[in-house]
Amino acid sequence: MSDRTAPDTPWQRDDRHLEERRLESRQVFRGRLLDVRVDRIELPDGQEDVREYVAHPGAVMIVPLLDDGRVVLERQYRYPLQRVMVEFPAGKLDPGEPGRACAERELFEETGYRAREWACAGRLNNAIAYSDETIQVWFARGLSAGDRHLDPGEFLDVFTATVDELAAWVRDGRVTDAKTMIGLLWLQQWRAGHWPLHWES
Amino acid sequence: MSDRTAPDTPWQRDDRHLEERRLESRQVFRGRLLDVRVDRIELPDGQEDVREYVAHPGAVMIVPLLDDGRVVLERQYRYPLQRVMVEFPAGKLDPGEPGRACAERELFEETGYRAREWACAGRLNNAIAYSDETIQVWFARGLSAGDRHLDPGEFLDVFTATVDELAAWVRDGRVTDAKTMIGLLWLQQWRAGHWPLHWES
Repeated sequence: MSDRTAPDTPWQRDDRHLEERRLESRQVFRGRLLDVRVDRIELPDGQEDVREYVAHPGAVMIVPLLDDGRVVLERQYRYPLQRVMVEFPAGKLDPGEPGRACAERELFEETGYRAREWACAGRLNNAIAYSDETIQVWFARGLSAGDRHLDPGEFLDVFTATVDELAAWVRDGRVTDAKTMIGLLWLQQWRAGHWPLHWES
Repeated sequence: MSDRTAPDTPWQRDDRHLEERRLESRQVFRGRLLDVRVDRIELPDGQEDVREYVAHPGAVMIVPLLDDGRVVLERQYRYPLQRVMVEFPAGKLDPGEPGRACAERELFEETGYRAREWACAGRLNNAIAYSDETIQVWFARGLSAGDRHLDPGEFLDVFTATVDELAAWVRDGRVTDAKTMIGLLWLQQWRAGHWPLHWES
């Protein structure tokens, strides 16, 4: 199929004119958190180039819904940005860990809440130019509060807000965390009845 | 102000119990794209730790609105994810480049479109755990089509879709690019009259 016969939707196209092929991969930095790679690649036109990126284990974000409609949020100092950010709870997957197990663990460790029902809303890729990270978006409801168990060296505040408050903070630029903004998008669409969630116990 | 007197909103708090302090910064990798740092820091409790992150020049995303209400999108192979992604046009800021100039440049280079009016909707931080990247969200309207000028080694398709089509693709997981999902959030809120945009010629 050539470009000239591209179908109506962009989902069925032949992508050979866009695809890049790995020739060689090299790890250039391995820290406690970051695994940085430089790959030599072949471009669609046959030329060679390099791609630099972070190899990431993947993560989950949790949108915790209280019975009164409020959501549970965190305030955490994010060193790269040198400031405290408001965000939904989130954390990295352990090797081989299922997404829901990670979501349950992170929600409990960071906030002390356990949830009766869970729903996976979808996935997001947050830095497609230079990271392979995928964040699973989980909703949690039927929350019961307990004591949180922060990791050593982890400091964060937990608080609650209405969805309208969160929306106002995104609108006025006080909340700028991408995953949290996407949590708001899903919340609004779900509450409006447009994007259903499939809850599991 | 102590924790015990925390005010009603989370925006006025004293953050000393969360803040981390830079002790030393070291560049551990400098590629063509990535600048990776490891900083030695002091935690709020006085312990020492390290933070690894990507220092990024910042970027812009453009939500290009056609007069008939459709938006302009791209299909681009994103090597870290090893697949073609659907996304709004975007690009990195050149040193000292104003956001709007970057948005005009990237829109024209990647799609061939020029816009009569621009509005900055806000900012997003896409990888707060390990990157200082900020993406400015720009809306463009009054579009006129011309010939695009891709960078050498840049390959991408340009196409148009309705906002409802884009929303359906986010809902069903075919669009997972975070900035594009946030563009949809802004689009929906703006079209509903909730989040105004301030247009400049």
